[in-house]
Amino acid sequence: MRLSRYFLPVLKETPSEAQIVSHRLMLRAGMIKQASAGIYSWLPLGYRVLRKIETIVHEEQARAGHIPLLMPTLQPADLWQESGRYDAYGPEMLRIRDRHDRDMLYGPTNEEMITDIFRSHVSSYKDLPLTLYHIQWKFRDEVRPRFGVMRGREFLMKDGYNFDLTKEDALHAYNRHLVSYLRTYERMGLQAIPMRADSGPIGGDDTHEFLVLAETGESEVFYDSEITDLKFGDREIDYDSHAQCRAVLEEFTSRYARTDETHDEALFNEVPEARRRTARGIEVGQIFYFGTKYSEPMGAVVQDADGASVPVHMGSHGIGVSRLLGAIIEASHDERGIIWPEGVTPFHCGIVNLKTGDAQADAACEQLYAALRKHGLDPLYDDTDDRAGAKFATMDLIGLPWRITVGPRGLKNGVVELTSRRTGESEEMSPEAAVARVAAIYGVA
Amino acid sequence: MRLSRYFLPVLKETPSEAQIVSHRLMLRAGMIKQASAGIYSWLPLGYRVLRKIETIVHEEQARAGHIPLLMPTLQPADLWQESGRYDAYGPEMLRIRDRHDRDMLYGPTNEEMITDIFRSHVSSYKDLPLTLYHIQWKFRDEVRPRFGVMRGREFLMKDGYNFDLTKEDALHAYNRHLVSYLRTYERMGLQAIPMRADSGPIGGDDTHEFLVLAETGESEVFYDSEITDLKFGDREIDYDSHAQCRAVLEEFTSRYARTDETHDEALFNEVPEARRRTARGIEVGQIFYFGTKYSEPMGAVVQDADGASVPVHMGSHGIGVSRLLGAIIEASHDERGIIWPEGVTPFHCGIVNLKTGDAQADAACEQLYAALRKHGLDPLYDDTDDRAGAKFATMDLIGLPWRITVGPRGLKNGVVELTSRRTGESEEMSPEAAVARVAAIYGVA
Repeated sequence: MRLSRYFLPVLKETPSEAQIVSHRLMLRAGMIKQASAGIYSWLPLGYRVLRKIETIVHEEQARAGHIPLLMPTLQPADLWQESGRYDAYGPEMLRIRDRHDRDMLYGPTNEEMITDIFRSHVSSYKDLPLTLYHIQWKFRDEVRPRFGVMRGREFLMKDGYNFDLTKEDALHAYNRHLVSYLRTYERMGLQAIPMRADSGPIGGDDTHEFLVLAETGESEVFYDSEITDLKFGDREIDYDSHAQCRAVLEEFTSRYARTDETHDEALFNEVPEARRRTARGIEVGQIFYFGTKYSEPMGAVVQDADGASVPVHMGSHGIGVSRLLGAIIEASHDERGIIWPEGVTPFHCGIVNLKTGDAQADAACEQLYAALRKHGLDPLYDDTDDRAGAKFATMDLIGLPWRITVGPRGLKNGVVELTSRRTGESEEMSPEAAVARVAAIYGVA
Repeated sequence: MRLSRYFLPVLKETPSEAQIVSHRLMLRAGMIKQASAGIYSWLPLGYRVLRKIETIVHEEQARAGHIPLLMPTLQPADLWQESGRYDAYGPEMLRIRDRHDRDMLYGPTNEEMITDIFRSHVSSYKDLPLTLYHIQWKFRDEVRPRFGVMRGREFLMKDGYNFDLTKEDALHAYNRHLVSYLRTYERMGLQAIPMRADSGPIGGDDTHEFLVLAETGESEVFYDSEITDLKFGDREIDYDSHAQCRAVLEEFTSRYARTDETHDEALFNEVPEARRRTARGIEVGQIFYFGTKYSEPMGAVVQDADGASVPVHMGSHGIGVSRLLGAIIEASHDERGIIWPEGVTPFHCGIVNLKTGDAQADAACEQLYAALRKHGLDPLYDDTDDRAGAKFATMDLIGLPWRITVGPRGLKNGVVELTSRRTGESEEMSPEAAVARVAAIYGVA
């Protein structure tokens, strides 16, 4: 993308309404614009990151064998009356009446609707196991929305639902989701720690939240410091293997790690003192096993091998897709702006032309731009006639992990400069070498 | 995808509530499920096609230089009070009150919101031209939703908005959209004819609708038969060239083609009688130029080269993404089911194992499945133990354009059968040749 043809409305001033750094940086980097309280437009740069995160979630869901569909944003009230949650859900549910005075609502979650889809179409144990998910906009009418996309009202979420014949199969689905989520977050450059949690309005006994450590987190967390040494890495997992998935769950949940909601001081004190940590965390996902809580009242039953009708065992599993942008920025920024992990960066690399209008510099930038695109990479080329300082400030603010700087002086010696946003280190090399290096970083050399 | 692990709830019975063929076939093929009147869940097969259509729209928008963002589904009422449309819009607008009694609405279109984004961030003619678009769910509270996704209440639409300094530039944006839309529809296997239209509640003088001819279309259309011979094809267009875009517009709009709303009997009678056609059409898109209708009341102005403040010239341009599934099926089906054009098919090719459990047949199917996937193709492999007739019926119903049939008898002679869904013609060939043929059809050989 050429910056002269893009829409990147960066702000010089720090917006006063933003209390936390991710909100400030998303506004300043021209990623979002508030439409009304807790509701945002995703400007082009923000939208690019949102799509990258969505793509990672889809790819990892596919790897785990989960099947995507898409449920609508508006739901009929009667489904929620069946489950008993219509009255139980408080004023956070946005209730709507249509022109025929039918009661509807903007879905805050989809347990009822997916159970309805399941019971309408599945009647045999032979069609199990089954996990369906979607990535769709949800609404929770927070009384005081704040922190930008971290606690918005209209938010994008991945929610998945497993249907299994037995509790054991459903617990495997739970474990499989835990494994899949570990991979998902790591690909985004995040360490998200599974912590034993409270089930809240979803219900159920088994539930873990995934928390990213950050000073601005809404939850106080308590953990054994050994847990932050765990990495999922590149390991190959057979998602059908109960044993393999259970082993990962055990590895990642055997050490103490809880939020304030489930914290147990006595248990925590069993951790050697030197390893006891208290910090704050941002919740970026949660998994639940809740058995037959929805399938029983809603009649989601299958025939088992003996011909008996049994309610299916279910769980639901969510990733806060739009909130993840805030969480990533909270975990990865400095005083100059955002530092995107390579997995989610809106553009792979910036190209800064120090002297737009200089024939040699323009030509070198065009060649770099074309060469990077030939590798399937998306560079952002600052071809404007802003001064160099402003160009660097914008690149630092929007946080592209790599920048190639091109100027007449370097070109005389046949070199450009490749700079890491994270370390600030620069290295001179030929344009061809810079392209090769960036391609190698992104695995497309 | 292996059918045994997929969720494809095909129906044997024809649903009685569906009045038109696309609605019937989408229900029977397990593509959608009604959630409430005019609101649908997109089951996995339907979701796949929806995503394919979205991807084509995004790719063609990028080719035309248009920039994606994403505005929220819920909008504050005050923006619509500024433009004067809040009161003008009838009961099709779904009005919502949040917990703080603020008036909101579920956006039926986004002229106001995009104008607000523009005026907040753009102040100089140097930032023009600019075209922003999004693909987002909209809501129109139709009094009598019908015809499945063709006239739903919650629907997915691409809407784009151009901002230009002069009327001439804005008309170029209009022409550019027309060119881009011709390419977009052709990639989906559709012939969509631009017809002079009425502007309705959007406003403006210049507007064309794109109509797909189909017996079930809601509009009566009148046209010169020469127009159906026009093809956009592979031509390379410089989307920045005013002359090239205008030439395409003239080529595709110089012949008589109007809906009943703008039909002019006297003009129509100037078409030679043998070329006069009356038919029915489905609207799948519309483009508008409406000048300063929104920029003036909402203060979307820029400084021009002389320092004067001038309101920008705008247009809006829509593609009915979810409705396109219905339109494509209306235009492409037979008595056995859907016939997907290659550009939007949910799976590139079906594999039917005539004897699941037969070691040789199973192995041959697995090899075909792996070989097709190695080309980056998505086959749907029917590995269930249904009988052959049921497998063929399902494949015909869901409409994959190509099917490879594998059975012990053919394998003895080293052959499988490749069948075209459209023509019904079958040809025997080696498994390797079948893979090569399918790869060549999709341009990935």
